[in-house]
Amino acid sequence: MDFGFSAEVQELRAKLQAFFDEYILPNEAAHAAEAAAHRAAGDPWRPSPLVESLKVKARERGLWNLFLPRSPLAPQGLSNLDYAPLCEIMGRVPWSPEVFNCSAPDTGNMEVLARYGSDAQKARWLVPLLAGEIRSAFLMTEPGVASADATNIRTRLRRDGDHIVIDGRKWFASGAGDPRCTVYIVMGRSFEDAPAHRQQSMVLVPADTPGIRVVRPMTVFGYDDAPHGHMEVELRGVRVPAENVILGEGRGFEIAQGRLGPGRIHHCMRCIGLAERALELLCERLRTRQAFGRRLADFDVWHERIAEARCLIEQARLLTLKAAWAMDTVGNKAAKREIAMIKVVAPNVAEKVLDWAIQAHGGAGVSQDFPLAQAWTAARALRLADGPDEVHRAAIAKWELADASM
Amino acid sequence: MDFGFSAEVQELRAKLQAFFDEYILPNEAAHAAEAAAHRAAGDPWRPSPLVESLKVKARERGLWNLFLPRSPLAPQGLSNLDYAPLCEIMGRVPWSPEVFNCSAPDTGNMEVLARYGSDAQKARWLVPLLAGEIRSAFLMTEPGVASADATNIRTRLRRDGDHIVIDGRKWFASGAGDPRCTVYIVMGRSFEDAPAHRQQSMVLVPADTPGIRVVRPMTVFGYDDAPHGHMEVELRGVRVPAENVILGEGRGFEIAQGRLGPGRIHHCMRCIGLAERALELLCERLRTRQAFGRRLADFDVWHERIAEARCLIEQARLLTLKAAWAMDTVGNKAAKREIAMIKVVAPNVAEKVLDWAIQAHGGAGVSQDFPLAQAWTAARALRLADGPDEVHRAAIAKWELADASM
Amino acid sequence: MDFGFSAEVQELRAKLQAFFDEYILPNEAAHAAEAAAHRAAGDPWRPSPLVESLKVKARERGLWNLFLPRSPLAPQGLSNLDYAPLCEIMGRVPWSPEVFNCSAPDTGNMEVLARYGSDAQKARWLVPLLAGEIRSAFLMTEPGVASADATNIRTRLRRDGDHIVIDGRKWFASGAGDPRCTVYIVMGRSFEDAPAHRQQSMVLVPADTPGIRVVRPMTVFGYDDAPHGHMEVELRGVRVPAENVILGEGRGFEIAQGRLGPGRIHHCMRCIGLAERALELLCERLRTRQAFGRRLADFDVWHERIAEARCLIEQARLLTLKAAWAMDTVGNKAAKREIAMIKVVAPNVAEKVLDWAIQAHGGAGVSQDFPLAQAWTAARALRLADGPDEVHRAAIAKWELADASM
Amino acid sequence: MDFGFSAEVQELRAKLQAFFDEYILPNEAAHAAEAAAHRAAGDPWRPSPLVESLKVKARERGLWNLFLPRSPLAPQGLSNLDYAPLCEIMGRVPWSPEVFNCSAPDTGNMEVLARYGSDAQKARWLVPLLAGEIRSAFLMTEPGVASADATNIRTRLRRDGDHIVIDGRKWFASGAGDPRCTVYIVMGRSFEDAPAHRQQSMVLVPADTPGIRVVRPMTVFGYDDAPHGHMEVELRGVRVPAENVILGEGRGFEIAQGRLGPGRIHHCMRCIGLAERALELLCERLRTRQAFGRRLADFDVWHERIAEARCLIEQARLLTLKAAWAMDTVGNKAAKREIAMIKVVAPNVAEKVLDWAIQAHGGAGVSQDFPLAQAWTAARALRLADGPDEVHRAAIAKWELADASM
Repeated sequence: MDFGFSAEVQELRAKLQAFFDEYILPNEAAHAAEAAAHRAAGDPWRPSPLVESLKVKARERGLWNLFLPRSPLAPQGLSNLDYAPLCEIMGRVPWSPEVFNCSAPDTGNMEVLARYGSDAQKARWLVPLLAGEIRSAFLMTEPGVASADATNIRTRLRRDGDHIVIDGRKWFASGAGDPRCTVYIVMGRSFEDAPAHRQQSMVLVPADTPGIRVVRPMTVFGYDDAPHGHMEVELRGVRVPAENVILGEGRGFEIAQGRLGPGRIHHCMRCIGLAERALELLCERLRTRQAFGRRLADFDVWHERIAEARCLIEQARLLTLKAAWAMDTVGNKAAKREIAMIKVVAPNVAEKVLDWAIQAHGGAGVSQDFPLAQAWTAARALRLADGPDEVHRAAIAKWELADASM
Repeated sequence: MDFGFSAEVQELRAKLQAFFDEYILPNEAAHAAEAAAHRAAGDPWRPSPLVESLKVKARERGLWNLFLPRSPLAPQGLSNLDYAPLCEIMGRVPWSPEVFNCSAPDTGNMEVLARYGSDAQKARWLVPLLAGEIRSAFLMTEPGVASADATNIRTRLRRDGDHIVIDGRKWFASGAGDPRCTVYIVMGRSFEDAPAHRQQSMVLVPADTPGIRVVRPMTVFGYDDAPHGHMEVELRGVRVPAENVILGEGRGFEIAQGRLGPGRIHHCMRCIGLAERALELLCERLRTRQAFGRRLADFDVWHERIAEARCLIEQARLLTLKAAWAMDTVGNKAAKREIAMIKVVAPNVAEKVLDWAIQAHGGAGVSQDFPLAQAWTAARALRLADGPDEVHRAAIAKWELADASM
Repeated sequence: MDFGFSAEVQELRAKLQAFFDEYILPNEAAHAAEAAAHRAAGDPWRPSPLVESLKVKARERGLWNLFLPRSPLAPQGLSNLDYAPLCEIMGRVPWSPEVFNCSAPDTGNMEVLARYGSDAQKARWLVPLLAGEIRSAFLMTEPGVASADATNIRTRLRRDGDHIVIDGRKWFASGAGDPRCTVYIVMGRSFEDAPAHRQQSMVLVPADTPGIRVVRPMTVFGYDDAPHGHMEVELRGVRVPAENVILGEGRGFEIAQGRLGPGRIHHCMRCIGLAERALELLCERLRTRQAFGRRLADFDVWHERIAEARCLIEQARLLTLKAAWAMDTVGNKAAKREIAMIKVVAPNVAEKVLDWAIQAHGGAGVSQDFPLAQAWTAARALRLADGPDEVHRAAIAKWELADASM
Repeated sequence: MDFGFSAEVQELRAKLQAFFDEYILPNEAAHAAEAAAHRAAGDPWRPSPLVESLKVKARERGLWNLFLPRSPLAPQGLSNLDYAPLCEIMGRVPWSPEVFNCSAPDTGNMEVLARYGSDAQKARWLVPLLAGEIRSAFLMTEPGVASADATNIRTRLRRDGDHIVIDGRKWFASGAGDPRCTVYIVMGRSFEDAPAHRQQSMVLVPADTPGIRVVRPMTVFGYDDAPHGHMEVELRGVRVPAENVILGEGRGFEIAQGRLGPGRIHHCMRCIGLAERALELLCERLRTRQAFGRRLADFDVWHERIAEARCLIEQARLLTLKAAWAMDTVGNKAAKREIAMIKVVAPNVAEKVLDWAIQAHGGAGVSQDFPLAQAWTAARALRLADGPDEVHRAAIAKWELADASM
């Protein structure tokens, strides 16, 4: 179990940190102002020119597609362990990962294509995605059922000759609000009568296929996260060529298992960064405010929370590194326990530390003047996204009880 | 300690509940749609015609100004204990209290005027407020300082002959976004050199006085709460007659003490209602969703949470009733312990129960389709509003330690 | 819902408090020394002469059998609500309830006899129990099964003509260590094939019946609680007359339901007293110790805990009073929810507050020099005694979900 | 940050595990019976013949003094990281570390002598301690003051020519109950007027020096932990040669800093083992008990706890390893943050997991029939031993706030 970072990663980290100090942190206010201006102009879904301009710089510096695992397509790719400290830095500013073409759900979708896509699928969608020329969405969750149980999914994929016809309704299709979003990966049921985990397929659907209607943006605790968005999407008689199916009909569950592991751990790495940022802001606030004749930093009730925050973050980071290391060394499937554990731990830690930071900021903490309020709700939402805590805990317990019976 | 409800209160409660069943709950979707339409039309700050139409009905049924305590002005007024079960019902739907002219901050402002206002002040502002013809705001919190310590307040009230000139900046002025908001009660410092609790004054300021600028709406976890709003307000050389001072210069702190008790307990009563609603929605969801072959209601991990929620709500309600009873029998000042306790307890309970309800709802829980997401952030914000938990806990401990030394 | 105490109860309370100040608190050290001396002399099971001497005084002052509910046998008996503040006072010193003939399990056993016993059973056992001349035990829990599910009980009651023959093994038979313990109430299974809740019977068994063997004292976190004790008892072919069955064969479950409610709430009342004592000791310690140049009472991390403790205790007390009031007004059965709730809440509150008090005391807190360590383990054990938290929470949730479906 | 275990450590681990499977676990009941027999015979302080016999076997297998860090004296010594997995195994059975001469406080005392002792001191005390021929105690904590603040220590060390005269009272002198305990390391104040951290000295005091009186065993939640014991010790005019001072007068605080780090982390390593054992027992119990028609293992409320336990243990273990690694690579002083963090985290984790295991065991869990009850109280006591949580959290926060100001 070696969590040391190679010289190459150390260097990347320094470069990424320098980029943050030069381009990301100083632009936080500008980014917010830009979004507010777009919204005021009635066009919240307009992509950010600021992000686009920063992408050019990031790419020039080799800070691009850092998430991509070692693979034939990316022979110099980073391991999960390598990526962890980089992704953590990006997590400090929620809009920053796109600058490095490292934002969800594109990263997960690119991994799916890289790992399971046909050459034709790769040429048509992976190449422009890696180049940051298009964006994508992942249509999994459905409004009518408990989607944590994937066998509940009701969207129907009907084979019609050499086409697939899709009928269903999805929501929380993150990224589907973006006008640059060109392709959806849609999870649906092909075979009613197959064994539970052989019923589903994943199929690539161009966003402009007839029968698709983006119904509305879902809000997440009031935030629509424009221009990214979490959309409700209706699919009625949507017809795509059968070669758009990834890996083969009935193999959707298999792909989901392969896709979700990395996606989950990326969220966790970012949660660590978010929690670190919150702790920094907390300490900074305490050092600069007075109440009842003392600096807030001199009230030891805050010392308890700072210490707890530090202990929680430190442990969550180590568990994230262990999960990344396990994925690298024994594979995503064998690392399922560590992934499940960190998926439960990291969002809860981030939510907790952010809550304390908000409390220390008073009214400012709940407002648009600090990144804390939105980050807190995002961390809360992550306790549901990619499977609710309860489902992951149940899995961990099942494995543990199975061990115990040996 | 008698928490029984009189026949009169029982009757009012039944009437209010019937009103809810007939007019409030069936209109939740319509209210949301109206607000969305106003926003889409670029006019989120337009007051709700629906609420206005319901006000007429509420008033006809005698469900009006229920919050108003027994006083010369309101000889048949309800006690705090009487009001508790009514306010709890209103708390179930956050926009409903205004229907009954029972919404903050107007209730608190009306109490201030009823209790401390001059005859002229009452005639000019209290009468139309009681009639629901105008609305008001309370300008206390300031952006630059820890306002939990009221001695930190920096807004300057300078005496200039028979006028007061106000300079300062306030934020989270709830209700000041409403175009019907006609008057502000402004807390500011009159005397730099007086003892800490004799420096402040409260003054009535018409909203259209020159020098006032409503800078922007503050968001609370992304919600601007239009058309009510939590505004940042700048005051530059704002000049009002000295007779607009309430009770006398230097008596602002005294008024604040009198005002905040009832305001706090109203928030708490509403929190109980909110938590009850959340528990109902939670149970309803669990009974109607399936995952992994079972109803969610059959997973006993939810039983733990339901039971905890019931225990928490039940206890918080009893403590609220005790605080109300104490205010009625020994006065707001002597009831300060109970008020401080319930101010800490109730928002935390509501936040906790709402969090569980959200978790049971999955993605729907964080979205605009259920009232849970916004309610959760509102409960969280209440842990800061009217003084952060830390300040109330410190007060409780101080009294406890003082007892211990006897 | 009227929690006011009558003049009679106020007077009793004052009398009981005076007795505590005069005889109980000043004798805490003497009581501990006496127990230590008995143990050192190899006779830890010898009853306390101190307690016996105080009983005389308590009885003289009318502070005797205060627990006994209003009944034909006790026409001037106190209601549960009346008893609550008295029992709370007794809870402050764990060995004190016996002084007033108000200690478990005798109180529960006396209630069973008073409510369900035949005249002959009353004459033989209830009369001397009420007089404090004998003591009793309740043999319910069994070592081999999850006794929280009463249908698991395996002790066999076989009818043999006009006798009952008992075979089984019980443990945690509290009070059975006391040489004055003369009678056991034994729960066992009479009918294998009856419906689950009609299989059990309760039978009175003289402690000196052949076939009974007191195997060993069970320890509760290391404490054997001598001379009271929690004994493991083996019953082999124990033969008693059939008229010793209480209420009738197959009615054991019915009696258990009736017995456990009052027993549980008495534990809860005592938990409130214990928690109050812990908070007093905590405050006292903080006011009298220094570290790092400050009184411990000046560290605000302790203020948080004191305030939390006060909020928790206050709420738990109100819920206890509500449960007592419900038992008095609608009966033990209809008050099952409130009883279940307080059974979960009160021991957890006591454990929490005691934990903080221990932490403030440092090493002294875990030692024999303060009553905190033993009280903490006793509160922890109460989370299992009379049914583990999980069972009560499951019941509360079941009722709640049933409501939700209406 | 490399937490991998060398081949040598892997081998030691396997050997130690095999020893446990062969000699420790099968002897748990025998060890308890032996202690009970000694106690029944009036001689609880008699050392365990079983432990003595196992020591011989452990030493033969090279499982001896494993704790000793690499040093001139122990050139093949293990690093802290090496020792972690071994110490974790020992933590599973609280009495087992002595079998390997790895039990506190002897380990800490041996480290002090190895690191700071003079050659004469080493020859006289370190050699027989390493051989397991004598045992030792550490006299630090005092009854009258908050000893968490070492400057509070009042025991007086007066220089009298070439002797030191000691007057004071210590308690919780662990190990001083053992008749083989031959030497105490005593912390006391030499210089009243020196800077706070230059006042204290540590001095070696033979246990049979005149003026020493072992007053009584302190109990820890009712357990006296005989034959080890936590003794109160009075020192009156105790006279020892000045060469018994370790490192020099006024350097006690410096030694304490060096001693406490390793001691603390050993406790933490053992806590991990204890928590693992608790989780195993929990799972085992759930798989073998039924209630309400289901295996306890099928109640998902337990799944939540198992998963939480696994996440907590995993994280605490990683943090322990990180602290050990930091001590090995940057030294005990620079690793102070990690040591402080794990000192807070590990006992709390163990206490939490043990609490769940107890709850799953019902009455058996609080009794002498399982190692859970005593372990739970021991974990609780560790939240105070070696400094209460509050002191460590305050230190962590201080460092964090200092960083924030850079």
